[in-house]
Amino acid sequence: MPPTIAVFDSGFGGLTVLRQLLPLVPGARYLYLGDTARLPYGAKSRQTIARYALSSAAFLLSQGADMLVVACNTASALALDELESTLPIPVIGVIEPGVKAVGAPCLDSETWDPSNPSVLVLATSATVQSHAYSRACAAHGLVAYEKACPLLVPLVEEGWVDHPVTAEVLRIYLREALAEAPTVSTLVLGCTHYPLIKPLIQRTLAELHHPMHIVDSATATAHAAQQVILGAPSQTASPFEVGSQPTCTFYATDSIEKFQRLGSNFLGQPLPEVHLIDLGG
Amino acid sequence: MPPTIAVFDSGFGGLTVLRQLLPLVPGARYLYLGDTARLPYGAKSRQTIARYALSSAAFLLSQGADMLVVACNTASALALDELESTLPIPVIGVIEPGVKAVGAPCLDSETWDPSNPSVLVLATSATVQSHAYSRACAAHGLVAYEKACPLLVPLVEEGWVDHPVTAEVLRIYLREALAEAPTVSTLVLGCTHYPLIKPLIQRTLAELHHPMHIVDSATATAHAAQQVILGAPSQTASPFEVGSQPTCTFYATDSIEKFQRLGSNFLGQPLPEVHLIDLGG
Repeated sequence: MPPTIAVFDSGFGGLTVLRQLLPLVPGARYLYLGDTARLPYGAKSRQTIARYALSSAAFLLSQGADMLVVACNTASALALDELESTLPIPVIGVIEPGVKAVGAPCLDSETWDPSNPSVLVLATSATVQSHAYSRACAAHGLVAYEKACPLLVPLVEEGWVDHPVTAEVLRIYLREALAEAPTVSTLVLGCTHYPLIKPLIQRTLAELHHPMHIVDSATATAHAAQQVILGAPSQTASPFEVGSQPTCTFYATDSIEKFQRLGSNFLGQPLPEVHLIDLGG
Repeated sequence: MPPTIAVFDSGFGGLTVLRQLLPLVPGARYLYLGDTARLPYGAKSRQTIARYALSSAAFLLSQGADMLVVACNTASALALDELESTLPIPVIGVIEPGVKAVGAPCLDSETWDPSNPSVLVLATSATVQSHAYSRACAAHGLVAYEKACPLLVPLVEEGWVDHPVTAEVLRIYLREALAEAPTVSTLVLGCTHYPLIKPLIQRTLAELHHPMHIVDSATATAHAAQQVILGAPSQTASPFEVGSQPTCTFYATDSIEKFQRLGSNFLGQPLPEVHLIDLGG
Protein backbone atom coordinates (compact mmCIF):
# COMPACT_ATOMS: atom_id res chain seq x y z
CA MET A 1 0.00 0.00 0.00
CA PRO A 2 1.66 3.28 -1.06
CA PRO A 3 1.58 6.15 1.43
CA THR A 4 -0.81 9.06 0.83
CA ILE A 5 1.07 12.35 0.94
CA ALA A 6 -1.13 15.42 1.22
CA VAL A 7 0.32 18.73 0.04
CA PHE A 8 -1.51 21.89 1.00
CA ASP A 9 -1.19 25.54 -0.01
CA SER A 10 -3.44 28.57 -0.22
CA GLY A 11 -3.05 28.40 -3.99
CA PHE A 12 -0.69 27.22 -6.69
CA GLY A 13 2.69 27.95 -5.09
CA GLY A 14 2.80 24.64 -3.23
CA LEU A 15 2.89 22.87 -6.59
CA THR A 16 6.59 23.85 -6.70
CA VAL A 17 7.04 21.60 -3.64
CA LEU A 18 5.01 18.77 -5.20
CA ARG A 19 7.11 19.14 -8.36
CA GLN A 20 10.28 18.44 -6.33
CA LEU A 21 8.61 15.65 -4.35
CA LEU A 22 7.27 13.57 -7.26
CA PRO A 23 10.68 12.25 -8.43
CA LEU A 24 11.86 11.72 -4.83
CA VAL A 25 8.93 9.52 -3.75
CA PRO A 26 7.60 8.25 -7.06
CA GLY A 27 5.58 5.40 -5.58
CA ALA A 28 3.22 7.53 -3.45
CA ARG A 29 -0.39 8.58 -3.80
CA TYR A 30 -0.57 12.38 -3.74
CA LEU A 31 -3.38 14.69 -2.74
CA TYR A 32 -2.93 18.40 -3.48
CA LEU A 33 -5.28 21.03 -2.09
CA GLY A 34 -5.15 24.69 -3.14
CA ASP A 35 -7.46 26.77 -0.94
CA THR A 36 -7.94 29.20 -3.80
CA ALA A 37 -11.30 30.57 -2.63
CA ARG A 38 -9.56 32.14 0.37
CA LEU A 39 -6.15 33.02 -1.05
CA PRO A 40 -3.93 34.83 -0.60
CA TYR A 41 -3.07 34.02 3.00
CA GLY A 42 -0.06 36.37 2.91
CA ALA A 43 -1.79 39.52 4.12
CA LYS A 44 -4.17 37.95 6.67
CA SER A 45 -4.08 37.44 10.44
CA ARG A 46 -2.81 34.45 12.41
CA GLN A 47 -6.30 33.57 13.63
CA THR A 48 -7.80 33.57 10.14
CA ILE A 49 -4.91 31.66 8.57
CA ALA A 50 -5.01 29.00 11.31
CA ARG A 51 -8.76 28.52 10.81
CA TYR A 52 -8.31 28.13 7.05
CA ALA A 53 -5.36 25.73 7.43
CA LEU A 54 -7.20 23.53 9.95
CA SER A 55 -10.29 23.17 7.77
CA SER A 56 -8.09 22.36 4.76
CA ALA A 57 -6.14 19.76 6.75
CA ALA A 58 -9.36 18.16 8.04
CA PHE A 59 -10.50 17.64 4.45
CA LEU A 60 -7.20 16.03 3.46
CA LEU A 61 -7.31 13.76 6.50
CA SER A 62 -10.80 12.65 5.48
CA GLN A 63 -9.33 11.69 2.10
CA GLY A 64 -6.82 9.34 3.74
CA ALA A 65 -3.69 11.48 4.13
CA ASP A 66 -0.81 9.68 5.93
CA MET A 67 1.24 12.84 6.18
CA LEU A 68 0.73 16.54 5.52
CA VAL A 69 3.18 18.85 3.78
CA VAL A 70 2.22 22.46 4.48
CA ALA A 71 3.66 23.81 1.24
CA CYS A 72 2.86 27.40 2.10
CA ASN A 73 5.21 29.65 4.04
CA THR A 74 2.44 31.76 5.51
CA ALA A 75 0.51 28.74 6.84
CA SER A 76 3.80 27.20 8.06
CA ALA A 77 4.65 30.43 9.88
CA LEU A 78 1.27 30.94 11.49
CA ALA A 79 -0.51 27.60 11.77
CA LEU A 80 2.09 24.81 11.98
CA ASP A 81 1.90 24.47 15.77
CA GLU A 82 -1.87 24.17 15.68
CA LEU A 83 -1.76 21.68 12.82
CA GLU A 84 0.87 19.55 14.58
CA SER A 85 -1.01 19.49 17.86
CA THR A 86 -4.38 18.77 16.20
CA LEU A 87 -3.57 16.21 13.49
CA PRO A 88 -2.78 12.52 14.19
CA ILE A 89 -0.32 12.34 11.24
CA PRO A 90 3.18 13.78 10.67
CA VAL A 91 3.14 17.42 9.56
CA ILE A 92 6.01 19.14 7.74
CA GLY A 93 6.19 22.87 7.05
CA VAL A 94 8.49 24.66 4.62
CA ILE A 95 10.32 26.94 7.05
CA GLU A 96 12.40 24.51 9.10
CA PRO A 97 13.65 22.54 6.04
CA GLY A 98 14.50 25.80 4.25
CA VAL A 99 16.48 27.17 7.20
CA LYS A 100 18.26 23.83 7.72
CA ALA A 101 19.31 23.92 4.07
CA VAL A 102 21.02 27.29 4.54
CA GLY A 103 23.98 25.73 6.29
CA ALA A 104 23.94 22.42 4.41
CA PRO A 105 26.51 21.75 1.73
CA CYS A 106 25.06 22.15 -1.72
CA LEU A 107 26.19 22.26 -5.32
CA ASP A 108 25.48 25.95 -5.73
CA SER A 109 27.60 26.91 -2.73
CA GLU A 110 30.34 29.16 -4.15
CA THR A 111 28.70 32.27 -2.74
CA TRP A 112 27.95 30.79 0.70
CA ASP A 113 30.10 32.23 3.45
CA PRO A 114 29.98 30.13 6.67
CA SER A 115 31.77 32.87 8.60
CA ASN A 116 28.84 35.19 7.95
CA PRO A 117 25.70 33.59 9.33
CA SER A 118 23.23 36.30 8.33
CA VAL A 119 20.41 35.37 5.99
CA LEU A 120 18.00 37.45 3.96
CA VAL A 121 14.47 36.00 3.83
CA LEU A 122 12.04 37.29 1.20
CA ALA A 123 8.44 36.49 2.18
CA THR A 124 4.85 37.71 2.41
CA SER A 125 3.81 40.33 4.96
CA ALA A 126 2.13 37.77 7.23
CA THR A 127 5.19 35.49 7.24
CA VAL A 128 7.49 38.42 8.04
CA GLN A 129 5.22 39.72 10.80
CA SER A 130 5.17 36.27 12.41
CA HIS A 131 9.02 36.29 12.65
CA ALA A 132 8.90 32.51 12.18
CA TYR A 133 12.07 32.68 10.08
CA SER A 134 13.90 34.71 12.73
CA ARG A 135 13.08 32.07 15.35
CA ALA A 136 14.00 29.13 13.09
CA CYS A 137 17.26 30.82 12.05
CA ALA A 138 18.20 31.65 15.65
CA ALA A 139 17.77 27.97 16.55
CA HIS A 140 20.42 27.16 13.92
CA GLY A 141 22.88 29.90 14.88
CA LEU A 142 21.79 32.15 12.02
CA VAL A 143 20.59 35.74 12.00
CA ALA A 144 17.60 36.40 9.74
CA TYR A 145 16.75 39.68 8.08
CA GLU A 146 13.14 39.35 6.94
CA LYS A 147 11.85 41.47 4.05
CA ALA A 148 8.15 41.63 3.16
CA CYS A 149 7.61 41.58 -0.62
CA PRO A 150 3.83 41.86 -1.04
CA LEU A 151 3.92 42.52 -4.80
CA LEU A 152 5.84 39.42 -5.83
CA VAL A 153 2.93 36.97 -5.55
CA PRO A 154 0.60 39.11 -7.71
CA LEU A 155 3.40 39.60 -10.27
CA VAL A 156 4.05 35.85 -10.47
CA GLU A 157 0.32 35.17 -10.75
CA GLU A 158 0.13 37.74 -13.58
CA GLY A 159 2.73 35.59 -15.33
CA TRP A 160 5.32 38.38 -15.31
CA VAL A 161 8.13 36.07 -14.17
CA ASP A 162 10.66 37.52 -16.61
CA HIS A 163 9.37 41.06 -16.98
CA PRO A 164 10.97 44.53 -16.56
CA VAL A 165 8.34 45.54 -13.97
CA THR A 166 9.09 42.50 -11.81
CA ALA A 167 12.81 43.23 -12.19
CA GLU A 168 12.23 46.83 -11.04
CA VAL A 169 10.13 45.71 -8.06
CA LEU A 170 12.87 43.22 -7.12
CA ARG A 171 15.50 45.97 -7.44
CA ILE A 172 13.48 48.14 -5.02
CA TYR A 173 12.89 45.38 -2.48
CA LEU A 174 16.46 44.05 -2.65
CA ARG A 175 18.02 47.54 -2.41
CA GLU A 176 15.89 48.27 0.66
CA ALA A 177 16.84 44.93 2.21
CA LEU A 178 20.57 45.26 1.47
CA ALA A 179 20.62 48.79 2.90
CA GLU A 180 19.40 47.31 6.19
CA ALA A 181 21.48 44.11 6.03
CA PRO A 182 24.51 44.83 3.82
CA THR A 183 26.51 41.74 4.81
CA VAL A 184 24.02 38.96 4.04
CA SER A 185 25.44 36.21 1.85
CA THR A 186 22.45 33.86 1.64
CA LEU A 187 18.92 34.50 0.45
CA VAL A 188 15.99 32.25 1.36
CA LEU A 189 12.92 32.16 -0.92
CA GLY A 190 10.35 32.35 1.87
CA CYS A 191 7.29 31.86 -0.35
CA THR A 192 6.49 28.96 -2.65
CA HIS A 193 5.66 31.37 -5.49
CA TYR A 194 9.21 32.68 -5.61
CA PRO A 195 11.02 29.72 -7.26
CA LEU A 196 9.42 30.87 -10.52
CA ILE A 197 11.39 34.14 -10.34
CA LYS A 198 14.64 32.64 -9.01
CA PRO A 199 16.50 33.39 -12.31
CA LEU A 200 15.30 37.01 -12.18
CA ILE A 201 16.35 37.33 -8.53
CA GLN A 202 19.80 35.99 -9.44
CA ARG A 203 20.12 38.48 -12.31
CA THR A 204 18.98 41.36 -10.11
CA LEU A 205 21.48 40.44 -7.38
CA ALA A 206 24.28 40.31 -9.98
CA GLU A 207 23.22 43.72 -11.24
CA LEU A 208 23.37 45.08 -7.67
CA HIS A 209 26.89 43.54 -7.35
CA HIS A 210 25.66 41.40 -4.49
CA PRO A 211 25.55 37.75 -5.62
CA MET A 212 24.10 35.41 -3.00
CA HIS A 213 23.55 31.74 -2.42
CA ILE A 214 19.79 31.24 -2.96
CA VAL A 215 17.99 28.61 -0.90
CA ASP A 216 14.73 27.35 -2.38
CA SER A 217 12.69 25.84 0.43
CA ALA A 218 10.60 23.82 -2.06
CA THR A 219 13.56 21.53 -2.72
CA ALA A 220 14.54 21.33 0.95
CA THR A 221 10.96 20.58 1.99
CA ALA A 222 10.61 17.82 -0.59
CA HIS A 223 13.75 16.17 0.80
CA ALA A 224 12.42 16.47 4.36
CA ALA A 225 9.13 14.86 3.34
CA GLN A 226 11.02 12.08 1.58
CA GLN A 227 12.93 11.35 4.81
CA VAL A 228 9.72 11.11 6.82
CA ILE A 229 8.14 8.72 4.32
CA LEU A 230 11.15 6.62 3.35
CA GLY A 231 13.05 6.80 6.62
CA ALA A 232 16.66 7.86 7.12
CA PRO A 233 19.01 7.45 4.09
CA SER A 234 20.75 4.50 5.83
CA GLN A 235 17.53 2.54 6.02
CA THR A 236 17.60 -0.23 3.42
CA ALA A 237 14.11 -1.67 3.28
CA SER A 238 11.56 0.69 1.81
CA PRO A 239 7.89 -0.22 1.94
CA PHE A 240 7.34 1.40 -1.46
CA GLU A 241 7.64 0.12 -4.96
CA VAL A 242 10.47 2.25 -6.34
CA GLY A 243 9.96 3.56 -9.84
CA SER A 244 6.21 3.03 -9.97
CA GLN A 245 4.14 5.99 -11.19
CA PRO A 246 2.67 8.35 -8.61
CA THR A 247 -1.05 9.07 -8.64
CA CYS A 248 -2.04 12.68 -8.05
CA THR A 249 -5.46 14.05 -7.17
CA PHE A 250 -5.92 17.81 -7.20
CA TYR A 251 -8.51 19.78 -5.24
CA ALA A 252 -9.24 23.51 -5.28
CA THR A 253 -11.81 25.58 -3.42
CA ASP A 254 -12.34 28.02 -6.31
CA SER A 255 -12.29 28.14 -10.12
CA ILE A 256 -10.77 24.88 -11.34
CA GLU A 257 -10.23 26.33 -14.82
CA LYS A 258 -7.88 28.96 -13.43
CA PHE A 259 -6.20 26.38 -11.21
CA GLN A 260 -5.44 24.17 -14.17
CA ARG A 261 -4.23 27.04 -16.33
CA LEU A 262 -1.93 28.68 -13.76
CA GLY A 263 -1.01 25.52 -11.89
CA SER A 264 0.82 23.92 -14.80
CA ASN A 265 3.46 26.71 -14.65
CA PHE A 266 4.17 25.79 -11.04
CA LEU A 267 4.06 22.01 -11.45
CA GLY A 268 6.10 22.11 -14.65
CA GLN A 269 3.64 19.82 -16.44
CA PRO A 270 -0.04 19.93 -17.37
CA LEU A 271 -2.46 19.28 -14.52
CA PRO A 272 -5.03 16.52 -14.86
CA GLU A 273 -8.59 16.96 -13.62
CA VAL A 274 -9.01 19.33 -10.65
CA HIS A 275 -11.87 18.70 -8.22
CA LEU A 276 -13.79 21.68 -6.86
CA ILE A 277 -14.56 21.35 -3.14
CA ASP A 278 -16.37 23.60 -0.68
CA LEU A 279 -14.75 24.09 2.72
CA GLY A 280 -17.47 26.55 3.74
CA GLY A 281 -16.92 30.23 4.21
CA MET B 1 -35.05 57.90 13.11
CA PRO B 2 -32.12 58.20 10.65
CA PRO B 3 -31.81 55.51 7.96
CA THR B 4 -29.13 52.85 8.32
CA ILE B 5 -27.03 52.66 5.17
CA ALA B 6 -24.86 49.57 4.90
CA VAL B 7 -21.81 49.76 2.66
CA PHE B 8 -20.08 46.52 1.77
CA ASP B 9 -16.82 45.67 0.04
CA SER B 10 -14.32 42.83 0.05
CA GLY B 11 -11.85 45.22 1.63
CA PHE B 12 -10.99 48.90 1.90
CA GLY B 13 -11.88 50.10 -1.59
CA GLY B 14 -15.53 50.65 -0.73
CA LEU B 15 -14.44 53.32 1.73
CA THR B 16 -13.97 55.57 -1.32
CA VAL B 17 -17.75 55.28 -1.85
CA LEU B 18 -18.49 55.91 1.83
CA ARG B 19 -16.21 58.96 1.65
CA GLN B 20 -18.39 60.44 -1.11
CA LEU B 21 -21.61 59.43 0.63
CA LEU B 22 -20.95 60.97 4.06
CA PRO B 23 -21.35 64.62 2.95
CA LEU B 24 -24.35 63.76 0.74
CA VAL B 25 -26.42 62.08 3.46
CA PRO B 26 -24.89 63.49 6.63
CA GLY B 27 -27.77 62.49 8.89
CA ALA B 28 -27.56 58.73 8.38
CA ARG B 29 -26.28 55.87 10.47
CA TYR B 30 -23.60 54.01 8.50
CA LEU B 31 -22.42 50.43 8.73
CA TYR B 32 -19.33 49.50 6.74
CA LEU B 33 -18.22 45.89 6.31
CA GLY B 34 -14.91 44.92 4.73
CA ASP B 35 -14.77 41.16 4.16
CA THR B 36 -11.00 41.27 4.52
CA ALA B 37 -10.57 37.62 5.57
CA ARG B 38 -11.69 36.54 2.10
CA LEU B 39 -10.35 39.36 -0.08
CA PRO B 40 -9.54 39.88 -2.83
CA TYR B 41 -12.71 38.92 -4.70
CA GLY B 42 -11.22 40.06 -8.01
CA ALA B 43 -9.67 36.76 -9.07
CA LYS B 44 -12.39 34.40 -7.77
CA SER B 45 -15.37 32.65 -9.34
CA ARG B 46 -18.98 33.84 -9.52
CA GLN B 47 -20.17 31.08 -7.18
CA THR B 48 -17.61 31.89 -4.50
CA ILE B 49 -18.13 35.66 -4.74
CA ALA B 50 -21.92 35.30 -4.51
CA ARG B 51 -21.58 33.10 -1.40
CA TYR B 52 -19.29 35.63 0.25
CA ALA B 53 -21.51 38.60 -0.68
CA LEU B 54 -24.68 36.92 0.61
CA SER B 55 -23.15 36.06 3.98
CA SER B 56 -21.81 39.61 4.31
CA ALA B 57 -25.21 41.08 3.42
CA ALA B 58 -26.98 38.80 5.92
CA PHE B 59 -24.76 40.16 8.68
CA LEU B 60 -25.49 43.78 7.73
CA LEU B 61 -29.21 43.06 7.61
CA SER B 62 -29.01 41.60 11.11
CA GLN B 63 -27.46 44.91 12.20
CA GLY B 64 -30.49 46.86 10.96
CA ALA B 65 -29.50 47.93 7.45
CA ASP B 66 -32.25 49.83 5.59
CA MET B 67 -30.36 49.74 2.31
CA LEU B 68 -27.23 48.08 0.99
CA VAL B 69 -24.58 49.73 -1.15
CA VAL B 70 -22.41 47.06 -2.77
CA ALA B 71 -19.31 49.24 -2.98
CA CYS B 72 -17.29 46.60 -4.79
CA ASN B 73 -17.24 46.23 -8.55
CA THR B 74 -16.53 42.51 -8.48
CA ALA B 75 -19.45 41.77 -6.13
CA SER B 76 -21.66 44.15 -8.14
CA ALA B 77 -20.71 42.33 -11.34
CA LEU B 78 -21.18 38.82 -10.02
CA ALA B 79 -23.60 38.89 -7.11
CA LEU B 80 -25.95 41.88 -7.51
CA ASP B 81 -28.84 39.84 -8.96
CA GLU B 82 -28.67 37.33 -6.14
CA LEU B 83 -28.45 40.08 -3.52
CA GLU B 84 -31.41 41.97 -5.02
CA SER B 85 -33.58 38.88 -5.22
CA THR B 86 -32.66 37.70 -1.70
CA LEU B 87 -32.66 40.87 0.39
CA PRO B 88 -35.82 42.69 1.52
CA ILE B 89 -34.11 46.11 1.28
CA PRO B 90 -32.97 48.30 -1.64
CA VAL B 91 -29.62 47.24 -3.07
CA ILE B 92 -27.35 49.48 -5.14
CA GLY B 93 -24.24 48.34 -6.97
CA VAL B 94 -21.46 50.47 -8.41
CA ILE B 95 -21.68 49.45 -12.06
CA GLU B 96 -25.03 50.90 -13.15
CA PRO B 97 -24.38 54.33 -11.52
CA GLY B 98 -20.90 54.45 -13.03
CA VAL B 99 -22.14 53.67 -16.53
CA LYS B 100 -25.03 56.14 -16.20
CA ALA B 101 -22.51 58.82 -15.26
CA VAL B 102 -20.58 58.29 -18.49
CA GLY B 103 -23.15 60.16 -20.53
CA ALA B 104 -24.16 62.60 -17.82
CA PRO B 105 -22.98 66.20 -17.96
CA CYS B 106 -20.18 66.83 -15.56
CA LEU B 107 -17.73 69.56 -14.67
CA ASP B 108 -14.72 67.68 -15.95
CA SER B 109 -16.25 67.11 -19.37
CA GLU B 110 -13.89 68.83 -21.79
CA THR B 111 -12.53 65.48 -23.04
CA TRP B 112 -15.95 63.78 -23.33
CA ASP B 113 -17.02 63.21 -26.93
CA PRO B 114 -20.74 62.32 -27.20
CA SER B 115 -20.32 61.35 -30.86
CA ASN B 116 -17.97 58.55 -29.80
CA PRO B 117 -19.82 56.24 -27.43
CA SER B 118 -16.99 53.79 -26.72
CA VAL B 119 -15.79 53.47 -23.16
CA LEU B 120 -12.69 51.90 -21.65
CA VAL B 121 -13.33 50.11 -18.34
CA LEU B 122 -10.38 49.21 -16.11
CA ALA B 123 -11.32 46.48 -13.63
CA THR B 124 -10.31 43.24 -11.91
CA SER B 125 -10.14 39.95 -13.82
CA ALA B 126 -13.41 38.67 -12.34
CA THR B 127 -15.29 41.88 -13.22
CA VAL B 128 -13.96 41.78 -16.78
CA GLN B 129 -14.77 38.09 -17.22
CA SER B 130 -18.35 38.73 -16.07
CA HIS B 131 -18.82 41.34 -18.87
CA ALA B 132 -21.18 43.18 -16.52
CA TYR B 133 -19.85 46.51 -17.81
CA SER B 134 -20.41 45.48 -21.45
CA ARG B 135 -24.05 44.65 -20.67
CA ALA B 136 -24.64 47.83 -18.65
CA CYS B 137 -22.99 49.97 -21.33
CA ALA B 138 -24.99 48.33 -24.15
CA ALA B 139 -28.19 49.16 -22.27
CA HIS B 140 -27.15 52.84 -22.42
CA GLY B 141 -26.08 52.83 -26.08
CA LEU B 142 -22.40 52.64 -25.20
CA VAL B 143 -19.74 50.17 -26.30
CA ALA B 144 -17.43 48.98 -23.53
CA TYR B 145 -13.87 47.81 -23.92
CA GLU B 146 -13.01 45.99 -20.70
CA LYS B 147 -9.39 45.69 -19.59
CA ALA B 148 -8.33 43.45 -16.68
CA CYS B 149 -5.69 45.12 -14.50
CA PRO B 150 -4.88 42.53 -11.82
CA LEU B 151 -1.79 44.32 -10.47
CA LEU B 152 -3.45 47.64 -9.65
CA VAL B 153 -5.14 46.50 -6.42
CA PRO B 154 -1.92 45.04 -4.95
CA LEU B 155 -0.02 48.21 -5.95
CA VAL B 156 -2.61 50.46 -4.27
CA GLU B 157 -2.59 48.25 -1.18
CA GLU B 158 1.23 48.49 -1.10
CA GLY B 159 0.71 52.26 -0.94
CA TRP B 160 2.47 52.85 -4.27
CA VAL B 161 -0.20 55.27 -5.48
CA ASP B 162 2.33 57.74 -6.89
CA HIS B 163 5.20 55.46 -7.76
CA PRO B 164 7.25 54.82 -10.93
CA VAL B 165 6.40 51.09 -10.87
CA THR B 166 2.66 51.81 -10.77
CA ALA B 167 3.13 54.35 -13.57
CA GLU B 168 4.94 51.72 -15.66
CA VAL B 169 2.23 49.09 -14.98
CA LEU B 170 -0.42 51.65 -16.00
CA ARG B 171 1.53 52.48 -19.16
CA ILE B 172 1.57 48.76 -20.08
CA TYR B 173 -2.13 48.20 -19.36
CA LEU B 174 -3.25 51.43 -21.06
CA ARG B 175 -1.07 50.85 -24.14
CA GLU B 176 -2.51 47.34 -24.51
CA ALA B 177 -6.05 48.68 -24.09
CA LEU B 178 -5.59 51.59 -26.51
CA ALA B 179 -4.10 49.29 -29.13
CA GLU B 180 -7.34 47.29 -29.03
CA ALA B 181 -9.68 50.27 -28.67
CA PRO B 182 -7.88 53.33 -30.13
CA THR B 183 -10.96 55.58 -30.31
CA VAL B 184 -12.18 55.47 -26.68
CA SER B 185 -12.72 58.88 -25.17
CA THR B 186 -13.99 57.93 -21.71
CA LEU B 187 -12.41 55.77 -19.03
CA VAL B 188 -14.41 54.19 -16.19
CA LEU B 189 -12.63 53.29 -12.96
CA GLY B 190 -14.22 49.86 -12.57
CA CYS B 191 -12.77 49.08 -9.15
CA THR B 192 -13.17 51.06 -5.93
CA HIS B 193 -9.40 50.91 -5.34
CA TYR B 194 -8.67 52.93 -8.44
CA PRO B 195 -9.79 56.43 -7.32
CA LEU B 196 -6.56 56.53 -5.29
CA ILE B 197 -4.52 56.38 -8.52
CA LYS B 198 -6.77 58.66 -10.59
CA PRO B 199 -4.11 61.42 -10.75
CA LEU B 200 -1.52 58.89 -11.93
CA ILE B 201 -3.93 57.52 -14.55
CA GLN B 202 -4.53 61.08 -15.79
CA ARG B 203 -0.78 61.75 -16.02
CA THR B 204 -0.18 58.45 -17.83
CA LEU B 205 -2.94 59.17 -20.35
CA ALA B 206 -1.46 62.62 -21.01
CA GLU B 207 1.94 61.03 -21.54
CA LEU B 208 0.40 58.61 -24.05
CA HIS B 209 -1.20 61.63 -25.82
CA HIS B 210 -4.63 60.16 -25.17
CA PRO B 211 -6.41 62.32 -22.56
CA MET B 212 -9.78 60.92 -21.52
CA HIS B 213 -12.76 61.86 -19.42
CA ILE B 214 -12.42 59.69 -16.27
CA VAL B 215 -15.59 58.47 -14.54
CA ASP B 216 -15.17 57.49 -10.91
CA SER B 217 -18.04 55.19 -10.00
CA ALA B 218 -17.56 55.96 -6.28
CA THR B 219 -18.97 59.46 -6.77
CA ALA B 220 -21.77 58.27 -9.08
CA THR B 221 -22.74 55.48 -6.67
CA ALA B 222 -22.87 57.85 -3.72
CA HIS B 223 -25.27 60.09 -5.64
CA ALA B 224 -27.44 57.08 -6.57
CA ALA B 225 -27.60 56.01 -2.92
CA GLN B 226 -28.49 59.56 -1.90
CA GLN B 227 -31.42 59.50 -4.34
CA VAL B 228 -32.74 56.23 -2.91
CA ILE B 229 -32.56 57.54 0.65
CA LEU B 230 -33.61 61.16 0.15
CA GLY B 231 -35.90 60.66 -2.85
CA ALA B 232 -35.74 62.55 -6.12
CA PRO B 233 -34.08 66.00 -6.08
CA SER B 234 -37.50 67.66 -6.46
CA GLN B 235 -38.73 66.12 -3.19
CA THR B 236 -38.86 68.87 -0.57
CA ALA B 237 -39.52 67.13 2.74
CA SER B 238 -36.62 65.03 3.94
CA PRO B 239 -37.06 62.74 6.91
CA PHE B 240 -33.51 63.48 8.04
CA GLU B 241 -31.99 66.16 10.16
CA VAL B 242 -29.77 67.88 7.63
CA GLY B 243 -26.34 68.77 8.91
CA SER B 244 -26.35 66.40 11.86
CA GLN B 245 -23.27 64.23 12.25
CA PRO B 246 -23.33 60.74 10.75
CA THR B 247 -22.50 57.78 12.96
CA CYS B 248 -20.25 55.15 11.40
CA THR B 249 -19.62 51.61 12.62
CA PHE B 250 -16.90 49.63 10.92
CA TYR B 251 -16.65 45.86 10.71
CA ALA B 252 -13.91 43.68 9.21
CA THR B 253 -13.52 39.92 9.00
CA ASP B 254 -9.73 40.02 9.41
CA SER B 255 -6.99 42.05 11.11
CA ILE B 256 -8.57 45.24 12.40
CA GLU B 257 -5.16 46.86 12.86
CA LYS B 258 -4.46 46.60 9.14
CA PHE B 259 -7.98 47.77 8.34
CA GLN B 260 -7.53 50.91 10.43
CA ARG B 261 -4.09 51.64 9.01
CA LEU B 262 -4.91 51.15 5.31
CA GLY B 263 -8.54 52.21 5.51
CA SER B 264 -7.79 55.80 6.46
CA ASN B 265 -6.14 56.36 3.04
CA PHE B 266 -9.37 55.33 1.35
CA LEU B 267 -11.75 57.17 3.69
CA GLY B 268 -9.60 60.29 3.73
CA GLN B 269 -9.81 60.53 7.51
CA PRO B 270 -8.76 58.36 10.45
CA LEU B 271 -11.00 55.37 11.15
CA PRO B 272 -12.51 54.97 14.60
CA GLU B 273 -12.79 51.56 16.27
CA VAL B 274 -13.15 48.61 13.86
CA HIS B 275 -15.06 45.53 15.05
CA LEU B 276 -13.72 42.10 14.13
CA ILE B 277 -16.49 39.71 13.08
CA ASP B 278 -16.46 36.08 11.96
CA LEU B 279 -18.63 35.18 8.97
CA GLY B 280 -17.36 31.57 9.05
CA GLY B 281 -15.10 30.02 6.47
